[in-house]
Amino acid sequence: MIDIEKTNEEISKKISNVEKGFDHFKMNIKKDFLDTFLKSVLALIDEGALYINEDGIATQAIDIANVCMALVSLNSGGIEEYSSEEGRIGLPFGRISKLLSSMKKDENVLIEYLPAKNKMRIVSENLRYDTALLSLDAIKKDLKPPEIELPVRITLNSNDFRHAITSAKKISDKITFKANIDGVIIESTGVSSDMSFEMEKDDMVDFDISSDAKEVKSSFSLDYLENISKVMTKSDNTSIWFGINHPCRIMGTFANGYGTVEYLLAPMIEDGY
Amino acid sequence: MIDIEKTNEEISKKISNVEKGFDHFKMNIKKDFLDTFLKSVLALIDEGALYINEDGIATQAIDIANVCMALVSLNSGGIEEYSSEEGRIGLPFGRISKLLSSMKKDENVLIEYLPAKNKMRIVSENLRYDTALLSLDAIKKDLKPPEIELPVRITLNSNDFRHAITSAKKISDKITFKANIDGVIIESTGVSSDMSFEMEKDDMVDFDISSDAKEVKSSFSLDYLENISKVMTKSDNTSIWFGINHPCRIMGTFANGYGTVEYLLAPMIEDGY
Amino acid sequence: MIDIEKTNEEISKKISNVEKGFDHFKMNIKKDFLDTFLKSVLALIDEGALYINEDGIATQAIDIANVCMALVSLNSGGIEEYSSEEGRIGLPFGRISKLLSSMKKDENVLIEYLPAKNKMRIVSENLRYDTALLSLDAIKKDLKPPEIELPVRITLNSNDFRHAITSAKKISDKITFKANIDGVIIESTGVSSDMSFEMEKDDMVDFDISSDAKEVKSSFSLDYLENISKVMTKSDNTSIWFGINHPCRIMGTFANGYGTVEYLLAPMIEDGY
Repeated sequence: MIDIEKTNEEISKKISNVEKGFDHFKMNIKKDFLDTFLKSVLALIDEGALYINEDGIATQAIDIANVCMALVSLNSGGIEEYSSEEGRIGLPFGRISKLLSSMKKDENVLIEYLPAKNKMRIVSENLRYDTALLSLDAIKKDLKPPEIELPVRITLNSNDFRHAITSAKKISDKITFKANIDGVIIESTGVSSDMSFEMEKDDMVDFDISSDAKEVKSSFSLDYLENISKVMTKSDNTSIWFGINHPCRIMGTFANGYGTVEYLLAPMIEDGY
Repeated sequence: MIDIEKTNEEISKKISNVEKGFDHFKMNIKKDFLDTFLKSVLALIDEGALYINEDGIATQAIDIANVCMALVSLNSGGIEEYSSEEGRIGLPFGRISKLLSSMKKDENVLIEYLPAKNKMRIVSENLRYDTALLSLDAIKKDLKPPEIELPVRITLNSNDFRHAITSAKKISDKITFKANIDGVIIESTGVSSDMSFEMEKDDMVDFDISSDAKEVKSSFSLDYLENISKVMTKSDNTSIWFGINHPCRIMGTFANGYGTVEYLLAPMIEDGY
Repeated sequence: MIDIEKTNEEISKKISNVEKGFDHFKMNIKKDFLDTFLKSVLALIDEGALYINEDGIATQAIDIANVCMALVSLNSGGIEEYSSEEGRIGLPFGRISKLLSSMKKDENVLIEYLPAKNKMRIVSENLRYDTALLSLDAIKKDLKPPEIELPVRITLNSNDFRHAITSAKKISDKITFKANIDGVIIESTGVSSDMSFEMEKDDMVDFDISSDAKEVKSSFSLDYLENISKVMTKSDNTSIWFGINHPCRIMGTFANGYGTVEYLLAPMIEDGY
């Protein structure tokens, strides 16, 4: 199970006290791990700040419509060689992911910050890219994930989550999560068809509902959940917390558990936001 | 060999005496079998009537230009659990095929008619779709397949048939079937290239030409035959009957022989219909 | 190693003394070999002249912008059955390649010149195409590959060459080959990113630099090199000769060494040609 409290603490620790100018950041990392890190943010936005300290790397992002926030972190334990000061740089996530696609899947890549040029160097075997970093001034910082109590927590196989989302997308652009003490129903209603994906307690890896909760129900945009559920297929399991017309929280892990990805997605009220 | 007379009798039996109002239809069927049934009609048209009785399910369809008719049936022997009254419902073939694509290939699906809602229920594991049925008023009924005597009948490997059709499509939009006592030539003539696909008696699974026939020859639209030959790849063999400027009849089987698909395709005379 | 002098001699021999009218050309050839021959020219242009004599077949082509020339030849030793007079015919490379795609990869195809119809016949199993040849009048002939001395010659694994080119294409449309006595650097510079692909002597299959050369450097269009490097993946190794702002020469082999493909690509000077 993902310890959400501990993970959030770690992310908060990483993003506090960061400073603009710093000189040293170098790591040797599995291409696949770095790619999952980048794609987790790219589900929402194309560029943002990378927070770096001795414990590892992290990023925060919010989409342009302010509907969904992502918190992604990768502990240095999941990185083969790692040495860094504490700092923050503006990273073009999309451009770096595109350059990485030239590198072979199972290879390691060497990442190095070049402070004099304000560039990031990416090296794999004979191939080297140097790419310009972004100004931090244009990047929103210190997003505050809202403190919310959510009465339901489910953990399910990530392929089941993906299956429910893609099945709903054939019906409409909106999905509803419902729960009672027996389990969870994921529903979508369209013009000519309805979908229902039902999971009883035992169909899930884990299920928890607070004792005072009765009919819990929230709706969300499938446009966001389609991207998110795709990212989650990199995680064996997906954990989802939700309540009554409250944001939901979706979490998974990657890089042998050293990486954590979390989304906070605002609910859809009636026919819009 | 497909017994075309018997199959037609069965289809005729199924589509006779059907009534509008009926209450009960439920089956548990291999997803792949139902999908082939639907795609066989979808080669021509997006929606139509499903005829149901205790022997199985069947449908008839004619394309919008009145050039090609399809007769598709699936005997209940090819369906794992089956129970039904006799009746007729309006089915959105395309929409159901799209919903089925959310189900895994090797799974069974449970199909159930919900008369109170006028919906069809499709269930596989945790996933359930309910989709609205169509009014029968808008659907042409009781198509009468023309009674025609065709002097040539060939049965060939369906991959050979598909190969001949896709090879001709590189040349033009029209194909000609020719036969004499030695065998069959499938030809297509384009602006700069010609194609010929020749099958002698022994290249075919079966070949029959009536003793009084000499040079048999008919041309057909490749737009139709491209869709039809794709459907036929689900059948080991394809049987084709043709004559002199007459419609051709194309038949195959699916669902371990419990399903039959037949097309009647009007000939192309000169440069059009 | 490819003996470039000998190959050029052979090509020159083949294209000399050809005459318009000739009656006989027939060969039985692996579909894959013929397809590689055609695709090697198609990297530049859609149609051209095929030179034929008792030693084999050859073609020359120059692209419409006069930037790149191709010389492709296939010795009859790489063709299963071959018999021909000496002659020249106008061949629609693209159309023949499209027709060939209907034939199975591992099959042989029979090619036969039909002088009475001015067509080429292509046969594989039951399938036969006859396709019109082109008038030679419209086709440039007797291209003269420039005589050039190039100080650097490298031979590298064709997949490495392809990797360098596709990696550069993510950055810009121009690539620079640089060499000194230690090895070769392939570079590309874009608006926000740079690429460098470095090969020391020992990273290459073979490397040669003339003793009086110091800093050799030329730039080329990636649009051409993308097509060329794709063709080269059919060759185990790719040999490249280059100099200082001179055309480069790129060579590979196919058809178990019986086929040779060579390109001469003009350099890009500053920001254009």
